[in-house]
Amino acid sequence: MNHTATPDLAATLIAENFSRDATGVLHVGGLPLTALADTYGTPLFVYDADGLRRAYRALKQAVAGFAEVDYSVKANPNPAVIRVFHAEGAGAEIASGAEFDAAMQAGVPPEKILFAGPGKSAADLDRVIGGGIGEIHLENREELCRVAAAAERHGTTVRVALRINPGATAQGGAMRMGGKPSPFGFDEEDLSEAVDAVEAEPRLHLVGLHLFAGTQGLKAETLLGQWAYGLDLAAQIARKIARPLETIDLGGGLGIPYFSGDATLDLNALRAGLPPLIETVSTNPLLAGARVVLEPGRYLAGPAGVYLARVLAVKVSRGSRFVITDGGMHHHLAASGNLGQIVKRDFPLVAVSGGEGVSPCTVSGPLCTPLDVLARAAMLPTLAEGDLVAVLQSGAYGLTASPTGFLSHPPPAEVLVDGGQAASIRSRGD
Amino acid sequence: MNHTATPDLAATLIAENFSRDATGVLHVGGLPLTALADTYGTPLFVYDADGLRRAYRALKQAVAGFAEVDYSVKANPNPAVIRVFHAEGAGAEIASGAEFDAAMQAGVPPEKILFAGPGKSAADLDRVIGGGIGEIHLENREELCRVAAAAERHGTTVRVALRINPGATAQGGAMRMGGKPSPFGFDEEDLSEAVDAVEAEPRLHLVGLHLFAGTQGLKAETLLGQWAYGLDLAAQIARKIARPLETIDLGGGLGIPYFSGDATLDLNALRAGLPPLIETVSTNPLLAGARVVLEPGRYLAGPAGVYLARVLAVKVSRGSRFVITDGGMHHHLAASGNLGQIVKRDFPLVAVSGGEGVSPCTVSGPLCTPLDVLARAAMLPTLAEGDLVAVLQSGAYGLTASPTGFLSHPPPAEVLVDGGQAASIRSRGD
Repeated sequence: MNHTATPDLAATLIAENFSRDATGVLHVGGLPLTALADTYGTPLFVYDADGLRRAYRALKQAVAGFAEVDYSVKANPNPAVIRVFHAEGAGAEIASGAEFDAAMQAGVPPEKILFAGPGKSAADLDRVIGGGIGEIHLENREELCRVAAAAERHGTTVRVALRINPGATAQGGAMRMGGKPSPFGFDEEDLSEAVDAVEAEPRLHLVGLHLFAGTQGLKAETLLGQWAYGLDLAAQIARKIARPLETIDLGGGLGIPYFSGDATLDLNALRAGLPPLIETVSTNPLLAGARVVLEPGRYLAGPAGVYLARVLAVKVSRGSRFVITDGGMHHHLAASGNLGQIVKRDFPLVAVSGGEGVSPCTVSGPLCTPLDVLARAAMLPTLAEGDLVAVLQSGAYGLTASPTGFLSHPPPAEVLVDGGQAASIRSRGD
Repeated sequence: MNHTATPDLAATLIAENFSRDATGVLHVGGLPLTALADTYGTPLFVYDADGLRRAYRALKQAVAGFAEVDYSVKANPNPAVIRVFHAEGAGAEIASGAEFDAAMQAGVPPEKILFAGPGKSAADLDRVIGGGIGEIHLENREELCRVAAAAERHGTTVRVALRINPGATAQGGAMRMGGKPSPFGFDEEDLSEAVDAVEAEPRLHLVGLHLFAGTQGLKAETLLGQWAYGLDLAAQIARKIARPLETIDLGGGLGIPYFSGDATLDLNALRAGLPPLIETVSTNPLLAGARVVLEPGRYLAGPAGVYLARVLAVKVSRGSRFVITDGGMHHHLAASGNLGQIVKRDFPLVAVSGGEGVSPCTVSGPLCTPLDVLARAAMLPTLAEGDLVAVLQSGAYGLTASPTGFLSHPPPAEVLVDGGQAASIRSRGD
């Protein structure tokens, strides 16, 4: 019984994170999605707190002894989601003033929050420095001056790290020379000058490095190569300032499988590759006391979420089956293939109530544009008006990464399932 | 003095819709963008009411004697924008219940509103039928039943038109056989059955046809071919029901130039091609009394709007210049190349204060993602923190077609300039 064009991936994901009852109905956190759809309406995002915890704990355990794991709020800034990770011990990496507020609302103490991003405004800097943020990661000269000026206004000193754009890129696992031009961070070639510029500012206290070398990494070898490179950059900064670093932020970039054929990141392989990195840190007195941190978002929040939509119509047009739902690109831009994808491939999408005899169909949304497609070749059973479909891997870069105002449909609700109970964590809009 | 990578296009657009003062500062509706940025903050959308009117009047005049021109609200649903077109005589084409409310708020009487879109919900149908909407365009069987049921609930009869997915597609101007499968409307091959289905519903009154054959049409010949085809479909429906049609909706689809080399739609050529179409309508007693309507959105609203962003930093990374602004893909997804574009090309983007000695640069936004790019090879003068840049052709599919929640920055304000006065038509978010 296959439910999608990527049967193995969808089946694997359901086996790992969800379940189907005896009648075939998909459950999240032990609750049937059919009931959640009735209670909260569709379209709907549903997150499983246990799934969030499972991802966090697995990664924490894999990197134990090497790094701590923070949560990158931009992946899913709902305070209820942040709260789950905070309860597991995660700090928060934020990218805007409003994300700072969301993290605080979730109970994350400000000293466990760090701020990265290439265009921090003076207003956001005032907001987070006034709020006592733990660390700001500097990306360019102008920002360095803005942070110093904001620190001056607040009569305080701000702990900062330098974000470095590496001189090498990871290709197939090894770091090769030839880093790209980038708007992010200071080029590695300018590391020494950047350190001097920070050290010249009395209101800034340079405590470490921030490296972000890539996104959606599915190979342990690639990540390990990036992290080793980051440790080397950290050592350079430490040597230059001739004092121990306090923070080595190796970024996020841990990927999850979205498409048929995508591998799952092998945490065992990751763990197996750590001893040399641990050795590098522990044998360098300037690094040994630093907090090494990873701050993934997608990896932690993605697998625990589903996007639920209800079928409005099913039609056959010139031999092709179209399933038209109330959900679409306005809530899930990534699934529609319009969030950076060059080749549009289908997210895993399944029929909530299962069913036999699957055949291919296009699942499209309610917007009056041909862009509004959730899947181009989903393998789904017979469906009719009122049936439900679910897009998997939708816990990260879903609702807040989507053009919710496009055609002015009501924004969907978000629900968190925890301990067998569902709670609305964002109300449906009007 | 060139300001962009597409100097001719940007210069042409500025000459047509805007102006620069003696010091080179770009004005919209006679007001300097520098002052508007200071007053309303950045990022900022600015629309010129005269520009909206100019586009409307030019098209109305070009198609006079053949068709009326309605406004497709989805392009820019701000009620103040709708109000400008309504004052010019436009009805409104809407695609959701909230767009109905926006049109009503703008003063459009409900009988001048028509509702299209492939996934109309029961709730939206109740909202618009309860509000006395003029016409609903049916897209599939399930919807036909939902509209009939809603009409029954409201104890009324609803005027409907059939949206037809044509059996031919326009290629280079001619309509060729071989229409594509589509989620939109009823296939032409099923027209007769669809008519029968509507006629069998006592609460539905079939008054016409809706054809939408394409988007972003820049060739008069293509549009004329689509319209001629639409008139033929309308005649088929009229023959089948054996009574005169009241509405022939030929859709929107009139394009505007975004990229270097894009032609501008030639309204004179359009006008020159109309006589045979006018003849077709006037000589068919079943069509002669029908209101022929075009309902563009982009064509009317696009050219009159600019998106304004302020420079936060300028850096050279490995030989490439990056201009980092407070504006980005979260407000202008289309300019970032993530709204359906296969090949990412640059929207026309200029320096607000002009300047000599242009060179190429990447203009990127504040989000912590490599997707957040407003232009990849803009030809801009020397810029520094605090300077302003403007993306042209931004009046349609801008703010509401963008993921404003992505990284939780405050949504920008929208300003309408009219009669030399600026007014906030949407406040900046928190």
